[in-house]
Amino acid sequence: MHIGCAFESGNIHVLDASDPGNVQLQIRPDAGGDHFQWFHFRVDGASGVPLVLRVTNAADASYPKGWEDYRACASHDGSTWFRVDTAWDGKELVLRHAPEQDLMYFAYFAPYPLERHGSLIAETASMDRASLRRLGSTVDGRDLDLLQIGPEDDGRARIWVIGRQHPGETMAEWLIEGLLVHLLDPDEPVSRSLLRRCTFYVVPNMNPDGSARGHLRNNAAGANLNRCWTSPDPDLSPEVFHVRNAMEATGVDFFLDVHGDEALPYNFVSGAEGTTGWNERSAARQARYLEVLSLVNPDFQTRFGYPVAAPGKANLRMATNWVAERFGCLSMTLEQPFKDTADDPQPEGWSPERAQRLGRDQLVALHATLPLLV
Amino acid sequence: MHIGCAFESGNIHVLDASDPGNVQLQIRPDAGGDHFQWFHFRVDGASGVPLVLRVTNAADASYPKGWEDYRACASHDGSTWFRVDTAWDGKELVLRHAPEQDLMYFAYFAPYPLERHGSLIAETASMDRASLRRLGSTVDGRDLDLLQIGPEDDGRARIWVIGRQHPGETMAEWLIEGLLVHLLDPDEPVSRSLLRRCTFYVVPNMNPDGSARGHLRNNAAGANLNRCWTSPDPDLSPEVFHVRNAMEATGVDFFLDVHGDEALPYNFVSGAEGTTGWNERSAARQARYLEVLSLVNPDFQTRFGYPVAAPGKANLRMATNWVAERFGCLSMTLEQPFKDTADDPQPEGWSPERAQRLGRDQLVALHATLPLLV
Amino acid sequence: MHIGCAFESGNIHVLDASDPGNVQLQIRPDAGGDHFQWFHFRVDGASGVPLVLRVTNAADASYPKGWEDYRACASHDGSTWFRVDTAWDGKELVLRHAPEQDLMYFAYFAPYPLERHGSLIAETASMDRASLRRLGSTVDGRDLDLLQIGPEDDGRARIWVIGRQHPGETMAEWLIEGLLVHLLDPDEPVSRSLLRRCTFYVVPNMNPDGSARGHLRNNAAGANLNRCWTSPDPDLSPEVFHVRNAMEATGVDFFLDVHGDEALPYNFVSGAEGTTGWNERSAARQARYLEVLSLVNPDFQTRFGYPVAAPGKANLRMATNWVAERFGCLSMTLEQPFKDTADDPQPEGWSPERAQRLGRDQLVALHATLPLLV
Amino acid sequence: MHIGCAFESGNIHVLDASDPGNVQLQIRPDAGGDHFQWFHFRVDGASGVPLVLRVTNAADASYPKGWEDYRACASHDGSTWFRVDTAWDGKELVLRHAPEQDLMYFAYFAPYPLERHGSLIAETASMDRASLRRLGSTVDGRDLDLLQIGPEDDGRARIWVIGRQHPGETMAEWLIEGLLVHLLDPDEPVSRSLLRRCTFYVVPNMNPDGSARGHLRNNAAGANLNRCWTSPDPDLSPEVFHVRNAMEATGVDFFLDVHGDEALPYNFVSGAEGTTGWNERSAARQARYLEVLSLVNPDFQTRFGYPVAAPGKANLRMATNWVAERFGCLSMTLEQPFKDTADDPQPEGWSPERAQRLGRDQLVALHATLPLLV
Repeated sequence: MHIGCAFESGNIHVLDASDPGNVQLQIRPDAGGDHFQWFHFRVDGASGVPLVLRVTNAADASYPKGWEDYRACASHDGSTWFRVDTAWDGKELVLRHAPEQDLMYFAYFAPYPLERHGSLIAETASMDRASLRRLGSTVDGRDLDLLQIGPEDDGRARIWVIGRQHPGETMAEWLIEGLLVHLLDPDEPVSRSLLRRCTFYVVPNMNPDGSARGHLRNNAAGANLNRCWTSPDPDLSPEVFHVRNAMEATGVDFFLDVHGDEALPYNFVSGAEGTTGWNERSAARQARYLEVLSLVNPDFQTRFGYPVAAPGKANLRMATNWVAERFGCLSMTLEQPFKDTADDPQPEGWSPERAQRLGRDQLVALHATLPLLV
Repeated sequence: MHIGCAFESGNIHVLDASDPGNVQLQIRPDAGGDHFQWFHFRVDGASGVPLVLRVTNAADASYPKGWEDYRACASHDGSTWFRVDTAWDGKELVLRHAPEQDLMYFAYFAPYPLERHGSLIAETASMDRASLRRLGSTVDGRDLDLLQIGPEDDGRARIWVIGRQHPGETMAEWLIEGLLVHLLDPDEPVSRSLLRRCTFYVVPNMNPDGSARGHLRNNAAGANLNRCWTSPDPDLSPEVFHVRNAMEATGVDFFLDVHGDEALPYNFVSGAEGTTGWNERSAARQARYLEVLSLVNPDFQTRFGYPVAAPGKANLRMATNWVAERFGCLSMTLEQPFKDTADDPQPEGWSPERAQRLGRDQLVALHATLPLLV
Repeated sequence: MHIGCAFESGNIHVLDASDPGNVQLQIRPDAGGDHFQWFHFRVDGASGVPLVLRVTNAADASYPKGWEDYRACASHDGSTWFRVDTAWDGKELVLRHAPEQDLMYFAYFAPYPLERHGSLIAETASMDRASLRRLGSTVDGRDLDLLQIGPEDDGRARIWVIGRQHPGETMAEWLIEGLLVHLLDPDEPVSRSLLRRCTFYVVPNMNPDGSARGHLRNNAAGANLNRCWTSPDPDLSPEVFHVRNAMEATGVDFFLDVHGDEALPYNFVSGAEGTTGWNERSAARQARYLEVLSLVNPDFQTRFGYPVAAPGKANLRMATNWVAERFGCLSMTLEQPFKDTADDPQPEGWSPERAQRLGRDQLVALHATLPLLV
Repeated sequence: MHIGCAFESGNIHVLDASDPGNVQLQIRPDAGGDHFQWFHFRVDGASGVPLVLRVTNAADASYPKGWEDYRACASHDGSTWFRVDTAWDGKELVLRHAPEQDLMYFAYFAPYPLERHGSLIAETASMDRASLRRLGSTVDGRDLDLLQIGPEDDGRARIWVIGRQHPGETMAEWLIEGLLVHLLDPDEPVSRSLLRRCTFYVVPNMNPDGSARGHLRNNAAGANLNRCWTSPDPDLSPEVFHVRNAMEATGVDFFLDVHGDEALPYNFVSGAEGTTGWNERSAARQARYLEVLSLVNPDFQTRFGYPVAAPGKANLRMATNWVAERFGCLSMTLEQPFKDTADDPQPEGWSPERAQRLGRDQLVALHATLPLLV
């Protein structure tokens, strides 16, 4: 039996794998050292062996509450993922599973590979109404790609959607894939209507370096991108620096920043209530969006979420607040669970497929809210 | 060059095909003799030849207004359909097209083959929550199949959906396919929620005999099934006879009868306003359904449609009215265009793909209306 | 529980289905009355019920030896077929199976639907080098379609392949589908080489009427087409009449007539040894073809087959002999088993997938034999 | 416009991209510094722009003859590759192309991504008869994976197939994918027969580090693996070290080492004629293999290839010779072109699809040769 993570987005440190019934593992911290929770590794040569895999530094992870009621993801082929027996005693996270095959992958959530990212970029950019704009380089020299769908036109609403500021929140890119696929489906009447009236600016992956390195939250320079929006450093957080510049050039009428939440078993939205420009109109358009999204997608809800910031107390270093403050537009953070929805739990937990459908339904909510935006 | 229709759902009579630039055709009437408009034929050996195909009895078709702004459907493979140049002068319908290949199919609308019907039945029946119930035989001896999804259970809403009473309205079965596929998709949260609270009874094709024979409206005995609901004859309209009996056994809380309309370039609903039990509650639940359906699917609208029957003037021989009168439930006829939606016309016109998405969105509207149904 | 066959290629007569544990069935004879063995029916409403289905007239079928070691084919969806427990006591054929679903199909062999035939015709005809030629009408008025692949050109070998003279031998069309798909695959070097040097004339289904009617061997007029080649009647065996005429027009350098054999558990070839023109060259080219086919496809063999006709004793009413006599070319009947290959039996028996690969490998054998043909 | 290669297997150095009509590029050498020819980069923002891309150090590449009649590969999506206009004047390699889309990839040959490698490994290992054995770590710490198909059994022939010792020869892994897919296809009679009599040991990618780094020939330590077989260093060429050990444990009855050749426009085999054990039996079994492979796959030929080594003059540092010398078995290097086959050139040149079919046909040749092997 061997445990390894020498592949893209891999993350594990093996302390002791001599006894399959008592394997000691640790999650490696992100560059910057202040965060870890994402893991991704493979086990080979353990077909039929009842594995007990102990993550011994789980209590020191970024969100220990994320381990409560959490079940780890596993896959034989890296493509279809399911959940396995997982226990949390406040000290160790323990995965128990007897692989049915020689090769088995475990991960915090279904990974979204850079290869698939490349296909998503290429396929979207090849559509009639779409184009690709490379905004700049990441810290490790990767391309930071913006997809533009629709022309730059004065009369159009400018819709910005970004994901994976925190690279371990892979469900963000699964959701954005679902959004893009449906947006460019000419048989979807909502999408046709949106494309007549809006131009979309989409960054499916804000943090490709962190994605490749197997990080939870930081970029290659150790920066938490969602704390850099007031003064992004061109060297330390070039990803935000470039996206902010592009926003300044286009203007923004709607902003959605897609994330995953380690602890809460719900899909929910966190708004910009704490910004100085928040007013009745802000509240009305956000309420409409949430009302329609809840209506068409019962995996989404509005009862549970983050506490709302007090007026004027918004943390402007976060994308949603910074955008709301700067552009006065509807600006929201969409959070998805790593675990599942407590309202309608499923064997596979929250999953790429469910995230894709929630991505599609953002379009329906946006379409219904559009008259309030511009 | 040869023109023929010796295949399932074929319908054409060739008067003269000696000159490809002036082909004379007639549509054959249904059994019963009172209806014709559906056509479906193939042309072979005309690759590159500019065909002029004249339907010389078009003015006598069931709905001459259906030819206004109509474009005929064509296909090289019987699977992908597009529209071709079509003219109507009040006397003849004239199709003009130079096939790019040796084989070319023309049809009134994209056919829904019995082979695909068989696959739809089989795949649906193989799902966990679904079962197949053969209700009886049609006039020609075919099987009349009902799909039941969900258990028979007192607390559940009983949702009935039927299609193709008029067999030439193939878009009805395309729509129902879209509805079924999404209903049984475990990643669709609306479907999961519906399946916890409802049991579905679906007859995707009420008229397989007419489908095979290439009819527009009648069954093999010449009966217009949607005029037989008050006293269906076990020999002449066994299709309605058997479905009505099954409804009496299950009860009905919601009924949708899916059709196509030859003339109007819109998707719309025709309700049971003329039935004696129509009241404020009836109006409220129908309004909610239409409101949500319009919201999530802009291909659907409520401005254009049939005139509403005066109170007490409903034609109870029609399914929607009979069911509303008998069960007091929300009961609607859903009409789709043969042509296109005038609000957002597309090169391919109204199509199987758009019908499937409208089928999916019935589920969203139903889900939102459910609290008002039971 | 209900047993029916009211669909294309259906064939069964229900004597008594009141007791699922003792169902009495009969196979209906072909038009002409002299043949039956093909069956195809569906059973619904028997999920979980241990069925015992007795074919009480099996001893009178065309080939009672065909029932020895035979296992019936079954399918839940009409698309994936497997084998079920089948017994033969010299009097009755008894199928025993407890369906896992509400809907279950049983057939003598995996059907090849006319819908799929239409797709095969259309897809092939749409390829660059291919064209469709309608040769004429069948007895029931269906189209008799010839696919031509490659130009008519003096220097090219003229390759004729036909199948399903006997419509119940559906494996013939499965094999021809495999041959065509690989022939038109531009990445197959054997196919590219063949298409530079040959022109193919392919009739995938010689007997669409018998196919639709659920016949074993005859056409709609009761004619056994493979006994009509010396003097085909334009009214009673128009299928042969038209194909023979087309052959006279093109000439023939190679002929393959694809069949299924009810009794022998082998793939084998029956040649034209009994024709008057048979000589050393005839023997050499046939030997080369068989040698290469055996080499590349172990499902094919040369040890078992039909007895070889004595010199001059060929039955010229059969296609292979008539073509050999008329054109002096390599002419063979390819027989596939209904059962399985005794050399390498598989759970699914002989199957569409294995037939397709044997079709592909005809191209390899033909390619290696080509230098001897012209 | 931007040119970059910050992705897996990327390789380019941009000297000057200020003028799209005169872009100056250089290929980066492998670790070790002695080899370069593989390139892989993307161009974005050049839709419709007539690019002229000059590789200014092409004359110093490992195989300048490889540029003669070479056409570069290009792709919009990284998945479908075609060839573009390419010129070679003995000094510069010049690619001329106006991309039709914003995003365009160029590469020396269609890349075989590690993501696809992972899927190939996982899917193969999940088959009934297959298992995965991790042999050890590469220099960069990646997994060196061996697929074993069939049990270890005395009576079975031990078939070893390896590829991509030289990582830029990606066609090697495309070929092995074709071989594996067909080997595990239960409907392929040759594969079923082989799996009854052989056990396969397959290393689809001997050099994953070089693959990720965009190397032509070397591993991460700068070693040319195919010159390391006499005394592989566990630190500098662990890939060979581990595979050689595994071979010693299993024994070898047949060995195929799959490569690409930069210069020759042919598929051919290079044998072990220079080894000391070469004898008549060696020659006979190799001749049989080549005869059958030529017969079934005209993309393969035996007229052109490398000069045959004189007796006793084999370079034993190469895998084929070392294995032949050590195990006395049939041992061959299979070379595929980067360019095309001169006997039957195609618009797309040599391609993944053609390599896959040549992989499949190795099985036919092996099957025919098997009686001579053991």
